[in-house]
Amino acid sequence: MRILLIGSGGVGDAFARIVARRGFFDLLVVADHDVDRAHRTVAAVQERHPGDDRFVAARVDASDPASVEAVAREHGATHVLNAVDPRFVMGVFAGARAAGADYLDMAMSLSTPHPEQPHALTGVKLGDEQFAAAAAWEAEGRLALVGIGVEPGLSDVFARYAVDHLFSHVVELGTRDGSNLTVDGYDFAPSFSIWTTIEECLNPPVVWEKERGWFTTPPFSEPEVFDFPGGIGPVECVNVEHEEVLLIPRWLDAERVTFKYGLGQEFVDVLRTLHTLGLDSTTPVSVPSAGGRVQVSPRDVVAACLPDPATLGDRMHGATCAGLWVTGTGTDGAPREVYLYHVVDNDWSMAEYGAQCVVWQTAVNPAVALELLATGVWSGAGVLGPEAFDAVPFLDLLRDGYGSPWGIQERTPTA
Amino acid sequence: MRILLIGSGGVGDAFARIVARRGFFDLLVVADHDVDRAHRTVAAVQERHPGDDRFVAARVDASDPASVEAVAREHGATHVLNAVDPRFVMGVFAGARAAGADYLDMAMSLSTPHPEQPHALTGVKLGDEQFAAAAAWEAEGRLALVGIGVEPGLSDVFARYAVDHLFSHVVELGTRDGSNLTVDGYDFAPSFSIWTTIEECLNPPVVWEKERGWFTTPPFSEPEVFDFPGGIGPVECVNVEHEEVLLIPRWLDAERVTFKYGLGQEFVDVLRTLHTLGLDSTTPVSVPSAGGRVQVSPRDVVAACLPDPATLGDRMHGATCAGLWVTGTGTDGAPREVYLYHVVDNDWSMAEYGAQCVVWQTAVNPAVALELLATGVWSGAGVLGPEAFDAVPFLDLLRDGYGSPWGIQERTPTA
Repeated sequence: MRILLIGSGGVGDAFARIVARRGFFDLLVVADHDVDRAHRTVAAVQERHPGDDRFVAARVDASDPASVEAVAREHGATHVLNAVDPRFVMGVFAGARAAGADYLDMAMSLSTPHPEQPHALTGVKLGDEQFAAAAAWEAEGRLALVGIGVEPGLSDVFARYAVDHLFSHVVELGTRDGSNLTVDGYDFAPSFSIWTTIEECLNPPVVWEKERGWFTTPPFSEPEVFDFPGGIGPVECVNVEHEEVLLIPRWLDAERVTFKYGLGQEFVDVLRTLHTLGLDSTTPVSVPSAGGRVQVSPRDVVAACLPDPATLGDRMHGATCAGLWVTGTGTDGAPREVYLYHVVDNDWSMAEYGAQCVVWQTAVNPAVALELLATGVWSGAGVLGPEAFDAVPFLDLLRDGYGSPWGIQERTPTA
Repeated sequence: MRILLIGSGGVGDAFARIVARRGFFDLLVVADHDVDRAHRTVAAVQERHPGDDRFVAARVDASDPASVEAVAREHGATHVLNAVDPRFVMGVFAGARAAGADYLDMAMSLSTPHPEQPHALTGVKLGDEQFAAAAAWEAEGRLALVGIGVEPGLSDVFARYAVDHLFSHVVELGTRDGSNLTVDGYDFAPSFSIWTTIEECLNPPVVWEKERGWFTTPPFSEPEVFDFPGGIGPVECVNVEHEEVLLIPRWLDAERVTFKYGLGQEFVDVLRTLHTLGLDSTTPVSVPSAGGRVQVSPRDVVAACLPDPATLGDRMHGATCAGLWVTGTGTDGAPREVYLYHVVDNDWSMAEYGAQCVVWQTAVNPAVALELLATGVWSGAGVLGPEAFDAVPFLDLLRDGYGSPWGIQERTPTA
């Protein structure tokens, strides 16, 4: 297996550090628009793994399918892993297909709100553009494994596991994400890309119900306090647009699929203010600069004012939890409620990998998936989500091969 | 009198509309970096006053003293009125002096926080750079009348009036500003320059006390609910850095001088968030643009995302109140507490002048002052604040000549 990694930001860098411990691939091309950044990732890996010559750096323009294709062909990539902002999904997706490579990503093509009723009806949904090409990928015998980070990704694997092994009837498959992370020296320092966080939090949240199909709500709807394991405790969670809701119902049977993010009240207030002021917008505005007036995206300026989350690992404390809350009827016919979860402590991921916990937790899942594809345990063609594959070998390899345990918490059914 | 107006934004435009009704001057040069904007102001005035040929438009670079001097000399300006953002004060101030013209402004040179104890001690104070040139202005027999908008400006005139005519001993001279303005169609639309509002609200507020001199506090300190007249009612006010506190103690005797702004909780929250995220900063950050990476000021981007307050008059409702709350001992020896105030209703200013109330209320005061200087009622040399001049002719002319009444509200002394 020869992997082309597009993007060596936080997640891409952590991916390289993770797979360096594994033998399943022959080459990892670390490609970034900023080739110096790609070189820094390669150097960091080689410092930890002297003599490992499977890593090379390259420059790529993720917005240009031809650039992705050229780099993939130059290095004979068999798999392209997309680790850049979701606005670049379609460029990388098309470039991988043009190069005849398989494709994996951790976020799907972007949505567009319904023009008249954005908080009730879906418009263009997350992933719609990718699923539109599913028949072509399948006809070519190529696999696009979409949404294989932690959320979406591990959450979808949990969903498949719950449906296959824990429940006879599922009422709700509800991803719930929370953390207790703090960053020394910063009043406000998001632990993940603010560009992506704004995108997912300010778009109308999407919910799926068997009777209604997909529908949307106003941002931050249906707040609920969810009690997270791993010492995190109760965090207020709200509905957020997320890929699981678009992926899970395509393969698994449930009454309802949701995603709630434990943003906390302060973060919600910040996002609301950015939206009220129009600072979440990606439509360029005209501002003065030393070289005359220029057009810039307000959201890019917000991102530029905040610290790069990938650089904050040393100052970060606490843990992050990703998981899936499932309600329904157990295999024994009795009401059952479980939370399948995966907690990563920042001290651990920094000590083991030099990667902060949020990006590490995202990056380990495509590593596991690629290893399963390399060994032939997983295989497929078309545009497939993680829930299209058997969950057991994934969860076993995550725990036993990558040393990252996951858990099942039985909860008292409330209905 | 030949006036060079620097800046035809909201306040400059309103100034031109106001003085067009008055005969005290021979020429008003409306100058702006955007000459089209200057032409729009001249055209708007001439549409309301056909045949009045005292108005001409010009281009000027307010950041360059040589540009200000050149335009002033070209038109034989006797007075330069600065109506641009306070970051340009020193350029216009120097340019006016170089041209041998008198100078007026409505905001003073900017402050720099104390490097170690910004929320306790003053660093470079508002106006310090201008007062450093006071001896030179005085020696040249030229007048720089600084801070002659509404606040600072009318508030300083009220202070002089209270000290001269209402009180034998003054405890506090406290400017209090509040409004009940709303803007149709906008959740958040500041009624005054957001650049200036951020500057004054996020800098450490300054307070003066006879025993301590000037000192600073954390932003938004000492919240108090002040009951405003004119149908506005109670508004939460907080300490804000403002010129009155730097001007009044130089000429008038009091125990304490303060400035509190009725921002309201929502506005305070927005400003806090901008500060937490670093979006109030004027230090350029690097962001992508279509032409490659550019350096832009986050605060400029915030301003670019919000509507221009000068254009909102048609959608604005309510009134704005500027005033001075005075406590102490009356001329009869009894405890006294008064609020001297000036309310402008937006419907009135739009109907009469086509200017929204906040910019109209700011612009009318330099018009009154210039008329008093033109007629010789006021005269002086050096760098002087409004409280250095007799208040009575100003207040009379404001009410009788400009049709804008002010009031005195007797309050029940609380100590």
